[in-house]
Amino acid sequence: MYVAIMGYGTVGSGVAEVLKKNHAHIVKKSLQDSLELKYILDLRTFPGDPNESLVTDDFNKILSDPEVKIVVETMGGLKPAYDFVLACLNAGKSVVTSNKELVAAKGIELLEAAKANNVNFLFEASVGGGIPIIRPIIQCLSANKITEVAGILNGTTNYILTRMFSDGADFEDALADAQELGYAERDPSADVDGIDACRKICILADLCFGKEVKPDSFSTEGIRDITKTDVKYAEAWGGVIKLVASAKAVNGGRNVSVCVSPALISGESQLACVSGVFNAILVRGNALGDAVFYGRGAGKLPTASAVVADVIDCARHLGRRKPFGWVKSPEGYVLPDDEFKGKFFVRCDSSFEEIADTFGKVEYINIEDPPENEKAFITPMITKGDLNKKCETLREVKSVIRVTDY
Amino acid sequence: MYVAIMGYGTVGSGVAEVLKKNHAHIVKKSLQDSLELKYILDLRTFPGDPNESLVTDDFNKILSDPEVKIVVETMGGLKPAYDFVLACLNAGKSVVTSNKELVAAKGIELLEAAKANNVNFLFEASVGGGIPIIRPIIQCLSANKITEVAGILNGTTNYILTRMFSDGADFEDALADAQELGYAERDPSADVDGIDACRKICILADLCFGKEVKPDSFSTEGIRDITKTDVKYAEAWGGVIKLVASAKAVNGGRNVSVCVSPALISGESQLACVSGVFNAILVRGNALGDAVFYGRGAGKLPTASAVVADVIDCARHLGRRKPFGWVKSPEGYVLPDDEFKGKFFVRCDSSFEEIADTFGKVEYINIEDPPENEKAFITPMITKGDLNKKCETLREVKSVIRVTDY
Repeated sequence: MYVAIMGYGTVGSGVAEVLKKNHAHIVKKSLQDSLELKYILDLRTFPGDPNESLVTDDFNKILSDPEVKIVVETMGGLKPAYDFVLACLNAGKSVVTSNKELVAAKGIELLEAAKANNVNFLFEASVGGGIPIIRPIIQCLSANKITEVAGILNGTTNYILTRMFSDGADFEDALADAQELGYAERDPSADVDGIDACRKICILADLCFGKEVKPDSFSTEGIRDITKTDVKYAEAWGGVIKLVASAKAVNGGRNVSVCVSPALISGESQLACVSGVFNAILVRGNALGDAVFYGRGAGKLPTASAVVADVIDCARHLGRRKPFGWVKSPEGYVLPDDEFKGKFFVRCDSSFEEIADTFGKVEYINIEDPPENEKAFITPMITKGDLNKKCETLREVKSVIRVTDY
Repeated sequence: MYVAIMGYGTVGSGVAEVLKKNHAHIVKKSLQDSLELKYILDLRTFPGDPNESLVTDDFNKILSDPEVKIVVETMGGLKPAYDFVLACLNAGKSVVTSNKELVAAKGIELLEAAKANNVNFLFEASVGGGIPIIRPIIQCLSANKITEVAGILNGTTNYILTRMFSDGADFEDALADAQELGYAERDPSADVDGIDACRKICILADLCFGKEVKPDSFSTEGIRDITKTDVKYAEAWGGVIKLVASAKAVNGGRNVSVCVSPALISGESQLACVSGVFNAILVRGNALGDAVFYGRGAGKLPTASAVVADVIDCARHLGRRKPFGWVKSPEGYVLPDDEFKGKFFVRCDSSFEEIADTFGKVEYINIEDPPENEKAFITPMITKGDLNKKCETLREVKSVIRVTDY
């Protein structure tokens, strides 16, 4: 059986490496006589690369070769990835991708095309890199109604925040270090502004709740505004700040409340221990309670290992469908941001009396040498809309950060 | 489609509860028109129980009913569970079990019987309760050669050790509390002496490395001997003590080194954060690196949710096999305990000179007010056989605890 890879960058070359490194093991697991790489699609050439002879810039070679049963898409982006993947599915080939942007934006269309052609479209590597999360959600937790899914889905921001806590670094310095170490891009926006985490939580919400959540249907907030003072308060409270992406079923499952933003997490939480570039995903089920999946959320071989696991699964299921997916969501399915409900950490210069008048009883947090006049506290449960209104009446609001209950 | 449950104890009644609670959801996930509970096998009667009318003490009713396609075994123990499960498989019924003793002792025989009859034998709930771990090992990590699997597999001992660290309780008091809370049995031996963890690591090793590991083929050590002084040293070192069960491929995969014993874990480890009755399993793959799966390792509904996920999987695969399993291992496959290799924490009354003469350079750990003359240190990498010989030359050895590298 033959496989093709589209896109010979970090993940694509990792896939080729894993296929070679664990070849006999993979063939056996695939229940095939053989499993060989036949083409690598890339516009670049790779002189001296062990797979040089497989590289082609002609997509039609892959598309028209009936021996290629499984195509790996590791190009990234929507164009031409979407057209290529759709064409492969329509040509009767199963497709495996690590491309979260593609799955978040076009998952429904591609799963439908896979169904129509009796092939599979799998994307375990699109969320959480090497961490097994998509298959556990579909299969292992199938006896549960999932009520919430949340996670630390971006390694770059988690590295930066970990540095801010462990070394007292400020955001800019920690970002510069992350860039030097290759954890952050020169333009770090997709990571630090939460765009990457946003795409991933959409995919998780799609799978957990069965209805599509579009990346632009809720607010996404990054970590640029987190300061050393916020870090001090979080430590005094006994917790940490993480970039948390979450989706929660509300109103009996008729709606979903989705949020990507920094969040205070209690030091007791399993998510609080997730350091550096690691990722973790928490799934809350109505029978199971909380389960957490932890591991390398990025990186060449970890991500490639998830891609190749999907390739093996496609090989085992040639001619048979793994039935899963989600449907278009009705208008108003994603709750407006104003209706997001939780506790919030607030820093402002109002007096104790003013704060009590506005919020009732709050939980104050004290640090050594706080900024003059400043009070920091955690509100009772409140909607974001109400919170925003109340904050308008406070003096000099410097931070508003949500607080998780996991 | 009809299901029967054998054994209406905690887990069995939880299975009935989950089947009812999430009924519509489960039927849909099963890709069946219906999925109903038809019999509950138990010698007891349950007057007033909502499922009272389904209870029977006649196993042959289940065995001879062709409508029952899936049988859940939640009786525990080997007798009569083994005979009943084997008979069900031979009658063409798929079987799901939560019985770790059965799978650890008789997994090969039952998987063979399932194969011969073209049905499935699944046991996700036998390790880690509700935590999805068996399916991820079989499917999600299939592109990896797994090099090691290790975990905190027993909630009772983890609760006791957590109490010893968080409250300074000693073993006896923490055990008494665990018994009062229902986390430990009146006879706590299966938990505190490591027997339960031993069965579970056998199942994990079977799956990860493909060859059978028998529960009596390596040494199993419980937590009875852990003292408050050990706890103090672990804290001073910056770590915790957990009951760790581990299996590691050695000698290029020709052997496996298995161990169940207390272990020092660095505070940085993801396993160090696993508190109370929670469980966690770490899987190390040659492409993935480390992944950790965390959640409730016991309890009625969490365990039942794993059982029902297997029921759903059986329902989706009626007439089709999920191919996995392991084979009998050759003589000498499990490494003798003396060849287990690692670093060890040692407490003794020898002088610094004697310790240096015996071990070379060691890492000393200091606490306030140590017992008189006592030294505590961590050895270099050494086999357990060599360590034991060296310890014979030391004065008053009070503790020897292995140190993990994860």
